[in-house]
Amino acid sequence: MVIVMQQGATEPQIDAVIDRLTELGFDVHRSTGVMHTVLGAVGGKEEFDLDVFELMDGVKEAHRISSPYKLASRSFRPGGTVVKIRDVEIGAERVVVMAGPCSVENRDQIDRSADLVAAAGARVVRGGAFKPRSSPYAFQGLGEEGLVMLRQAADRNGLLVASEVMDHTQIPLVAQYADILQVGARNMQNFNLLRELGKQRTPVLLKRGISATIEELLLSAEYIMSGGNYDLILCERGIRTFETYTRNTMDISAIPVVKKLSHLPIVADPSHGTGRRDKVVPMARAAVAAGADGLLVEVHPDPDHALSDGTQSLWPEQFHEMMRQLRIIAAAVERSI
Amino acid sequence: MVIVMQQGATEPQIDAVIDRLTELGFDVHRSTGVMHTVLGAVGGKEEFDLDVFELMDGVKEAHRISSPYKLASRSFRPGGTVVKIRDVEIGAERVVVMAGPCSVENRDQIDRSADLVAAAGARVVRGGAFKPRSSPYAFQGLGEEGLVMLRQAADRNGLLVASEVMDHTQIPLVAQYADILQVGARNMQNFNLLRELGKQRTPVLLKRGISATIEELLLSAEYIMSGGNYDLILCERGIRTFETYTRNTMDISAIPVVKKLSHLPIVADPSHGTGRRDKVVPMARAAVAAGADGLLVEVHPDPDHALSDGTQSLWPEQFHEMMRQLRIIAAAVERSI
Amino acid sequence: MVIVMQQGATEPQIDAVIDRLTELGFDVHRSTGVMHTVLGAVGGKEEFDLDVFELMDGVKEAHRISSPYKLASRSFRPGGTVVKIRDVEIGAERVVVMAGPCSVENRDQIDRSADLVAAAGARVVRGGAFKPRSSPYAFQGLGEEGLVMLRQAADRNGLLVASEVMDHTQIPLVAQYADILQVGARNMQNFNLLRELGKQRTPVLLKRGISATIEELLLSAEYIMSGGNYDLILCERGIRTFETYTRNTMDISAIPVVKKLSHLPIVADPSHGTGRRDKVVPMARAAVAAGADGLLVEVHPDPDHALSDGTQSLWPEQFHEMMRQLRIIAAAVERSI
Amino acid sequence: MVIVMQQGATEPQIDAVIDRLTELGFDVHRSTGVMHTVLGAVGGKEEFDLDVFELMDGVKEAHRISSPYKLASRSFRPGGTVVKIRDVEIGAERVVVMAGPCSVENRDQIDRSADLVAAAGARVVRGGAFKPRSSPYAFQGLGEEGLVMLRQAADRNGLLVASEVMDHTQIPLVAQYADILQVGARNMQNFNLLRELGKQRTPVLLKRGISATIEELLLSAEYIMSGGNYDLILCERGIRTFETYTRNTMDISAIPVVKKLSHLPIVADPSHGTGRRDKVVPMARAAVAAGADGLLVEVHPDPDHALSDGTQSLWPEQFHEMMRQLRIIAAAVERSI
Repeated sequence: MVIVMQQGATEPQIDAVIDRLTELGFDVHRSTGVMHTVLGAVGGKEEFDLDVFELMDGVKEAHRISSPYKLASRSFRPGGTVVKIRDVEIGAERVVVMAGPCSVENRDQIDRSADLVAAAGARVVRGGAFKPRSSPYAFQGLGEEGLVMLRQAADRNGLLVASEVMDHTQIPLVAQYADILQVGARNMQNFNLLRELGKQRTPVLLKRGISATIEELLLSAEYIMSGGNYDLILCERGIRTFETYTRNTMDISAIPVVKKLSHLPIVADPSHGTGRRDKVVPMARAAVAAGADGLLVEVHPDPDHALSDGTQSLWPEQFHEMMRQLRIIAAAVERSI
Repeated sequence: MVIVMQQGATEPQIDAVIDRLTELGFDVHRSTGVMHTVLGAVGGKEEFDLDVFELMDGVKEAHRISSPYKLASRSFRPGGTVVKIRDVEIGAERVVVMAGPCSVENRDQIDRSADLVAAAGARVVRGGAFKPRSSPYAFQGLGEEGLVMLRQAADRNGLLVASEVMDHTQIPLVAQYADILQVGARNMQNFNLLRELGKQRTPVLLKRGISATIEELLLSAEYIMSGGNYDLILCERGIRTFETYTRNTMDISAIPVVKKLSHLPIVADPSHGTGRRDKVVPMARAAVAAGADGLLVEVHPDPDHALSDGTQSLWPEQFHEMMRQLRIIAAAVERSI
Repeated sequence: MVIVMQQGATEPQIDAVIDRLTELGFDVHRSTGVMHTVLGAVGGKEEFDLDVFELMDGVKEAHRISSPYKLASRSFRPGGTVVKIRDVEIGAERVVVMAGPCSVENRDQIDRSADLVAAAGARVVRGGAFKPRSSPYAFQGLGEEGLVMLRQAADRNGLLVASEVMDHTQIPLVAQYADILQVGARNMQNFNLLRELGKQRTPVLLKRGISATIEELLLSAEYIMSGGNYDLILCERGIRTFETYTRNTMDISAIPVVKKLSHLPIVADPSHGTGRRDKVVPMARAAVAAGADGLLVEVHPDPDHALSDGTQSLWPEQFHEMMRQLRIIAAAVERSI
Repeated sequence: MVIVMQQGATEPQIDAVIDRLTELGFDVHRSTGVMHTVLGAVGGKEEFDLDVFELMDGVKEAHRISSPYKLASRSFRPGGTVVKIRDVEIGAERVVVMAGPCSVENRDQIDRSADLVAAAGARVVRGGAFKPRSSPYAFQGLGEEGLVMLRQAADRNGLLVASEVMDHTQIPLVAQYADILQVGARNMQNFNLLRELGKQRTPVLLKRGISATIEELLLSAEYIMSGGNYDLILCERGIRTFETYTRNTMDISAIPVVKKLSHLPIVADPSHGTGRRDKVVPMARAAVAAGADGLLVEVHPDPDHALSDGTQSLWPEQFHEMMRQLRIIAAAVERSI
């Protein structure tokens, strides 16, 4: 931490700040300038409010030095993390596409979905068994029955399974069927859920909350990693802004930013990021062009009759065309699909 | 729902929309204008995506008519709801102040807190036993031991108790000790939690999420009410904007807006809404001036040594002065404290 | 400026940063800690990008110390500025209400407006002669003819006149008739306009842009003051957020924040801040309760037939009732109206 | 416009709304449903506040049908607009790169800049002669001298010139030297400037304001087009959000959205959009992948010593590498560079 004293701060004021820092376990280095005295403080407790110091007499500003996350920061693993699940590597040279319907609706629907995503070259099938719906009156998902169908559809096609856990109590059930446990945007700061996921050894895909900063996303990753689970994939899926034409605004720049700040792989979800089918493919292309390690895309064999989020699901032929374009773009960033 | 067709939409396009609406259970009224054909649709299923229609051929725009919440809307109870807990009424003529420390830290701290808030005229003491902290390394709360201390401190002073539930599994425990179950901003859309709270008969204080619209807040209220629990208090506590000087931006205008749209009482939390002690009192005054039914304020007998959120906790003497000012302001809006 | 070097930064890296700082005219103080070397730099050029340093090898973070505004900061005039125009003082004990229609439409309308605002106790009549309309097809204002009518209506009632300048070329004309030159939110960073206003001796009312931070508002104030015009009044009028129910979100907390950071008076404009008549009065009350030095309110003798912004103009009787309530609230903060 | 009456709205209330609509020149079609009466209104005045109706008794909601822009909408020119300037076409098959330094600093700097951008395949050199700086103490540009240098540097390399006009009074001067008049983000709603640009026949590049919605951008385009100047290029350059790691958040999805809503070409400015050199290339790739018609990029022969915005300017070698990657990506969307 660096504390800058006001011009004219008195010695007793400066001493009071030094005492407070020492009390919190910091080593303090004082640098007395012509205009400002600056106190550098290292080694103290992680968690405290900077404002504690900003409200002290004679203090002009306080700045935190250490980033509040350690395990999730790039310096922890400069070479980057590759999450390996059987023969699929996320964070390596190949861009990994995870695709499927919003919800598992019935056996036929999920079978057709898995067949089509496998045929187009995706490696993971996704589908929700429990749906967090903002209305109490909406379709809430098939539960375990849906997970069974999803697993079988995946296995027939040699795909991995990704599915969402809404709550820490659902982990044991979903982990029986899924290779990747998805954490939705609304749960990015559900700390009880994060803590339990830290104890698992199943990889986790953590979505950025719609109003979460990149730093908060990385701090939530830290929460999981501090429990011992390092197999973590981050996901950009749009943030809330004043623009209302798209459901959310996809923060494509978060992709290169996260690659710099953290060693964790990051994928993009253009389906939730835009909420509109006709914007999904352009944004999928943009995400790969910006350096994403993978994509999470909704595709449905018959989007017009989907029980949830049909308007953001791709038609099968759109999905194929998207994969074709992505293969060209991946080459521009020295990757393949 | 109202659907506006594009200029030049063909009869088959119009028929396709009408068929789709009928399929969803709507009664359709067609109005053929010179430029646009407009379809009015009533009585269908609650939950569907407007975009389903916006993506159909020949459709220009679709607008939802019915607000998606019913039980929470003002028309359900035009006279307004008063939540009565023993001799305290929230939503009635008196502005109800709920105050106390961020966390219960030890018996002495919570006793002194309860004494001081009671002496100043507050009716409810608040304090967290489980703390949702964004860092895994921070103080996490005393748990049940804290709840016991909080209840005893309240009873000695004839106060009610408000305390947070972080998770549906904590409800049975917290409900044993608290009169009001608080739902934090991060949990506003934790639908499993909301569903369980709907089955309780303990009043709930629901905080607006930092990126939640007013409509989403009311929809979360609907979730709880649809389970049968109508004793609900809403709380404005700041939204996330581009301004960084304050931790959040308190949306004071949400207070009169909610009063118009809903019958539920609404209180304001200027402590979390601003994150800075010196802004708490002005914003508390603003909230009451704007028509808030109550306040949720952090006060601590010794804020400098608080284990959490000390920099937003009022000093005891500030709290007393705030109460004095609020009594004058309440009179301007025909209320008392 | 404070520059924090990365752990393990080499001596040549540290030297390169010191050289660069010296080149920019800074005195540098080095503090070598166990983990980080910290460089404190004072006295250099005002304007440069912090990022210049953040992109240098071995640098972890750079923080600016001095606030980029000086003349506008509270420390420049700790006692606060009072803008005196004839017998009206803005920034003193009395809360000053400025009111009138959005646009001057005709003589009868502006006369009736001035009469009613004077009768209710306002001190300034406002009205636009040039209207910045976001559609090219909308009413654009009466121009000089409107200014003449406005001045006469004000003089008949002993009121001051506030009117907007859209452009630096309009200053000479508007300054002939107005006592206060209003700068609209869209022009807060029109630097040519600000520069010309700095050369004037007519007081300026500067509105915060809808996406401007408080710091940017103060920097725009600095622009004007650096030209020599210190008679400046700031105005909070709502910022753009994700909430769509209100046109903008009034940032009431900006009022106490500006009072702390700057010596300049600040007023609030609840008419533009909310865009809805039924929210104007609650937000006017909130602004005064939060410490505003004045209000800018739209009122119209016949809002239903206003040529612009009619839906946010108060009815005459609402304006009177608002003034009555504000008198009570002002007393709570030791002020009068 | 569509107006939905409340349940139980009375006949006199409905009649009052119909009368008001008629007064404003609308043809009204009434549709009486079981729950709601719906009024469809076409043909009236363009400019009025929807809220006029929302505040009338018995009205539940009002929705605008016609988009408020006409000339800028896709339906005005379904095939899309190509802006032709000598042998350069913007909006056609080739992606057009416009590049150069933030400011023209001296002859050597601008010559070297023009040489390098031409060598890499860009078609337009950009550079500011007048700089809108948010601090009054910063470098303000070389003025006409800079324009002369810029023109000569361009001509030596067969490039077009793009340069910013800050103000309507600067148009005659800048138009003498520039092929494209750039309107900065802060001026997107400077209506006096837009009006004058409408009278010009020099093509205009209009940047989206940092808090402007896509609809507002198109309405500003309409302003210019309504004056008769149809040679307009739009530019996405980042919006203001709560994320602070990047200076702004580039709204890449605005590119496909604008392509759908409007016939005008749209380019992207990843330099201002991110504010950080190391994010410029990934975002340039993303923009082209999403369908941008061109790019506006800052490049400087020696960014470390640039007088303005040096930290977002590319190094010459980064610019060349970017062009190489963009050629591959352009092919994926059936374009070339």
